[in-house]
Amino acid sequence: MNFFMPTKVIMMEDCVLKNSALLKNYGQRALIVTGAKSAKSNGSLEDMIQALIVQDIKYDIFDKVMANPSVNCVYEGADFARERKSDFVIGIGGGSPMDAAKAIAILAVQEIKEEELFLGSYGNQVLPLVLIPTTAGTGSEVTQYSILTNVQSQTKTSISTPLIFPKLALLDAKYMKTLSMEITINTAVDALSHAIEGMLSIRASDMSNNLAIYSLKKLVYCLRFLSPDYSSSSLTIDIREKLLYGSMLAGMVIAHTGTTAVHAMGYSLTYFKNIDHGRANGLLLPSFLRFIMKSDQELIKKILSIMGLETIDEFETLFLRLLGEREGITEKDLERFAGIAINSKSLTNTKVVPTKEELIQIFSRSLQIN
Amino acid sequence: MNFFMPTKVIMMEDCVLKNSALLKNYGQRALIVTGAKSAKSNGSLEDMIQALIVQDIKYDIFDKVMANPSVNCVYEGADFARERKSDFVIGIGGGSPMDAAKAIAILAVQEIKEEELFLGSYGNQVLPLVLIPTTAGTGSEVTQYSILTNVQSQTKTSISTPLIFPKLALLDAKYMKTLSMEITINTAVDALSHAIEGMLSIRASDMSNNLAIYSLKKLVYCLRFLSPDYSSSSLTIDIREKLLYGSMLAGMVIAHTGTTAVHAMGYSLTYFKNIDHGRANGLLLPSFLRFIMKSDQELIKKILSIMGLETIDEFETLFLRLLGEREGITEKDLERFAGIAINSKSLTNTKVVPTKEELIQIFSRSLQIN
Repeated sequence: MNFFMPTKVIMMEDCVLKNSALLKNYGQRALIVTGAKSAKSNGSLEDMIQALIVQDIKYDIFDKVMANPSVNCVYEGADFARERKSDFVIGIGGGSPMDAAKAIAILAVQEIKEEELFLGSYGNQVLPLVLIPTTAGTGSEVTQYSILTNVQSQTKTSISTPLIFPKLALLDAKYMKTLSMEITINTAVDALSHAIEGMLSIRASDMSNNLAIYSLKKLVYCLRFLSPDYSSSSLTIDIREKLLYGSMLAGMVIAHTGTTAVHAMGYSLTYFKNIDHGRANGLLLPSFLRFIMKSDQELIKKILSIMGLETIDEFETLFLRLLGEREGITEKDLERFAGIAINSKSLTNTKVVPTKEELIQIFSRSLQIN
Repeated sequence: MNFFMPTKVIMMEDCVLKNSALLKNYGQRALIVTGAKSAKSNGSLEDMIQALIVQDIKYDIFDKVMANPSVNCVYEGADFARERKSDFVIGIGGGSPMDAAKAIAILAVQEIKEEELFLGSYGNQVLPLVLIPTTAGTGSEVTQYSILTNVQSQTKTSISTPLIFPKLALLDAKYMKTLSMEITINTAVDALSHAIEGMLSIRASDMSNNLAIYSLKKLVYCLRFLSPDYSSSSLTIDIREKLLYGSMLAGMVIAHTGTTAVHAMGYSLTYFKNIDHGRANGLLLPSFLRFIMKSDQELIKKILSIMGLETIDEFETLFLRLLGEREGITEKDLERFAGIAINSKSLTNTKVVPTKEELIQIFSRSLQIN
């Protein structure tokens, strides 16, 4: 059993303003990394700027992070950090800005060539990281991963190093009030996938399973309030908090177990079909669990039981209700996506490793074939 | 909700030898802090020395830590660390050597006067700490506390600072094989007390309660194998591991919640009556839970239910079976002990704070009055 979770996590209303004094520990000049819009409209950027002003910490803003951030984007952010002599990096947003912030925190102080970025060999220097999630899905605020879009390998690839565990994660569900139902569902499904995949990982331990079960119980409780047919304004702050808490716990799970074939497969759907990351995982999960069930019925039954479900059909119905109509892909896509997934690191992290043929089968059962 | 647990925990057979490479991260010269005997006889010291030799790390040994280590002892250890220019500190043993190692790690690099040692104001410097527990009770391997015997205040007092969270905790149940049944019971009861007190603390959170429940389930499972009437050789390595795991989890609990009035009261029994620390807590717990039950029946019922118990009488029976005949104290002791406990920091950390009269009542119900 291994446990390592060095990130200090504070979750409460107004935690950014109330814990501004902690920011002083990380330096005199901050680089805020965020996207173009959401941090401005949900109040998180404003809170952080106020916290920095109160503490008399200078700051610069790099707000050019797009969804599924590219390698170019993080090199640009790192150049900006060097130019401004940033002491630490504050990432605000969903997975994309947080993951970009993590890569920038390394690249600002280490010279790493683009072709070596994903090879896993890094020096010891990194700028301290403070992360503020504004969606409840990625769990990136408590992981050592930065997932970037890698044009070379035509998929998403991860930087994985304990260096980029954030020093501090500040979780305030009020920033999620304005999220649409669609984003709320997709991110919740991503978190569910993390918790479930943690239990499917060869690195699952008693400890990570405890966190996964705890996370699943929080998330599953919230599912009854999520539906494409409901308005997102029907979601109370209490539900938003449970989702945020559950997704953070699921982040702690994958920090220990990594993700599995589900994520490896989902990346193709996002890269080539522009299907949202969480949604992609959610579309694949039911058929993937059916695949595992053939070899390890007990494990799948355990997961279903934690979720309060009896059969895998119920699991599929639940996910289809959340995700609506499945996207279509072609026979040629199937072959290509399976060919990419079969080479992914995450694949061999799964308790039962699918063959290429099995990957094709899972893809084809998870989507509509045109 | 706050979560902070920066210690890397590795639990497996032969983890000291198998993870020797990690020690390189902390420096070139180690100070091993331990007691006079047990680390030598249970194999832990030998394993560590071998690990250090493999990594070509020099080491010195300070093996003068007694049970309930004194302030003098840790100043002596710190002088030794300065003299030997130790880069990091390795504590091996039960709570006493581990707690001494923590204090030494600070005092070796900070000038702190004895009268200021417990005032809570420290600089930023500390030697990195590696801890190897050889009993399953204290949980000190994952806490920010160092409990020392304080002659001035006639009790045990704690240094509490995030500085002394160990960098690394290495847990190998094989070092517990030779522990007597009496020590096994007393330490297990200490761990149980940590998990339960975590739930009685005003700082209890959803997260710490999850850890407490997880810990209690592990520990309670083992209780059926513990009895003063059984031989300790009847305990399998699997049971030893569960106890060690449960006590580590309980340490994570109190790292977040602190301890409560039970520990505050127990310290007098240890200081004046030489009653083992874990045993002292165990003697007090049944009457303390009865006291809380008057104000918060639901909380106590929850704890009992997690333990698979229905009534507080069953709880008391269980503890008496483990602990055997209670020690005697005098009426004068009662008054004195309550007078000391009423001034303890831990007291006000309890959800229901007892008055001095109530403390006297709890003491008198927990011991035999001579």
